[in-house]
Amino acid sequence: MEERLNHLTVRALVERLATSDPVPGGGTAAALAGAMGAALVSMVVELTTGRPVAAGHEATLTEIKTGATSWQSELLNLAELDANAYAAVVNARRMPRETEREREVRAVQLGVALRDATRIPLATARGASEVLDLAIRLAPIGNRNAVSDVGVAGLLAATALRGAALNVEINLPFVSDNGLRVEAADGIRRLLETVDERDERARAAVAERLR
Amino acid sequence: MEERLNHLTVRALVERLATSDPVPGGGTAAALAGAMGAALVSMVVELTTGRPVAAGHEATLTEIKTGATSWQSELLNLAELDANAYAAVVNARRMPRETEREREVRAVQLGVALRDATRIPLATARGASEVLDLAIRLAPIGNRNAVSDVGVAGLLAATALRGAALNVEINLPFVSDNGLRVEAADGIRRLLETVDERDERARAAVAERLR
Repeated sequence: MEERLNHLTVRALVERLATSDPVPGGGTAAALAGAMGAALVSMVVELTTGRPVAAGHEATLTEIKTGATSWQSELLNLAELDANAYAAVVNARRMPRETEREREVRAVQLGVALRDATRIPLATARGASEVLDLAIRLAPIGNRNAVSDVGVAGLLAATALRGAALNVEINLPFVSDNGLRVEAADGIRRLLETVDERDERARAAVAERLR
Repeated sequence: MEERLNHLTVRALVERLATSDPVPGGGTAAALAGAMGAALVSMVVELTTGRPVAAGHEATLTEIKTGATSWQSELLNLAELDANAYAAVVNARRMPRETEREREVRAVQLGVALRDATRIPLATARGASEVLDLAIRLAPIGNRNAVSDVGVAGLLAATALRGAALNVEINLPFVSDNGLRVEAADGIRRLLETVDERDERARAAVAERLR
C-alpha cells in the first residue's frame, strides 16, 4: 500500500476496511481502536490536571499522560505497519509457484512477510495492554464528568489487545521461525491470561464513579 | 463543530480526541469502533461470497452484507452527530447564568442538548448491537482465512455497545424529559443484559474456527 493509511479520511478508511481487498483488515482496526483508547486517556488527563480532583495525583497524571501520548503515536504507526505487513503476505501468496526456483523464492518472501505480520500485531497487543493499564490507573482519579471517556478508553484497549491477539494466532501456524513462534505464542498467552481480569477492573472502577 | 469529523484524516481525528477539548470524546470513538466493526463484517462477506464455503449460505451472506453496509454508514453518521450533540451540551453549560432570564434560557438550551446527547449514544448502542449479531451469524460461515477479522468485528461491536451505553448513563440523570429517561434507561438495560453472552458467543465461534 503506497499511500499512507493514517492520511486517509476517517470515512475513506472505514470504506477501505469494507472492500474485498483484505488490506487493511482487523489488525489495522485493532491498532486504531488502541490509538483511540490512548487518545481518550490523554484527553481525560487534560480535563483533570489543574482541578481540585487532581490534588496529590500530579505525578501519576503526568506519568499517565506521557504513556498515553507515546502509545497513541506508536499504535497509529502499528495500524499502518499492519496493513503493509499483511499486504506483503497477500502479495507473496500470489507469487508464481510453477518451477522449483519460483517455489523457493515464494517461500522465502512469504516467510519474511509472515514474520512481520506476526510481530506487528504482537506489538499492538503489548501496546494496547499498556493503554488498558493507564485507563485502570486513571479511572479512580480522573475528572468525574469524563469518567465515561475513561471507560470507553479501557474498552477500546481491551478490544485492541484481544483483536491483535487473534491476528497473531491466525498467522502463528505458518511462521517458520521457531524463536518467533515461541516468543509470540508465549507473549500472547501471557497477555490473554490477565486481560479479562484487567478489563473487568477498569469497568468496575468506572461503574463505581458513575454511581 | 463546523468541520465534518469524518472528513478529518485518521491521524487528525485521533489527535483531536486527545486534546483537552471534550469534543470529540468517547461517544464518537465508540461509534467509530462500531463502524469499523460493520466494515470488517462487509469485508469478510466479500471474501466469502462466490467461494465453495459460501455454498448454501448465499441468502444469509446477502442479508449480512446489507445490514453491515447500512450500519457502517449509520454509525459513521452517529460518530459525527455525537460530537455535535456533546458540543451543544458543553456550549450550553458555558452560557451565562447571572439573571433569572439567563438561567431559564440556559436550562432550556441544556435540556435540548442533553436530550440529543442521550438519544445519539442510545442509537449507537442499538446499531452496535446489530453489528454484533451480524458477526455472530458470519463467524461459522465466513472465509476461514478471515475469521480473525470477524473476531475483531465482534469485539469492536461489543465495545461500541458498552461504550455508547456509558455515554447514555452519564447523561441520564440530567435528562429532564421523563419519557426519554425511561426509554433510554430501559433500552440500555436490555442491551447490556445480553451483551456479555453475545460477545462470548462471537468469540467462541471465532476460536472454534481458529483451531
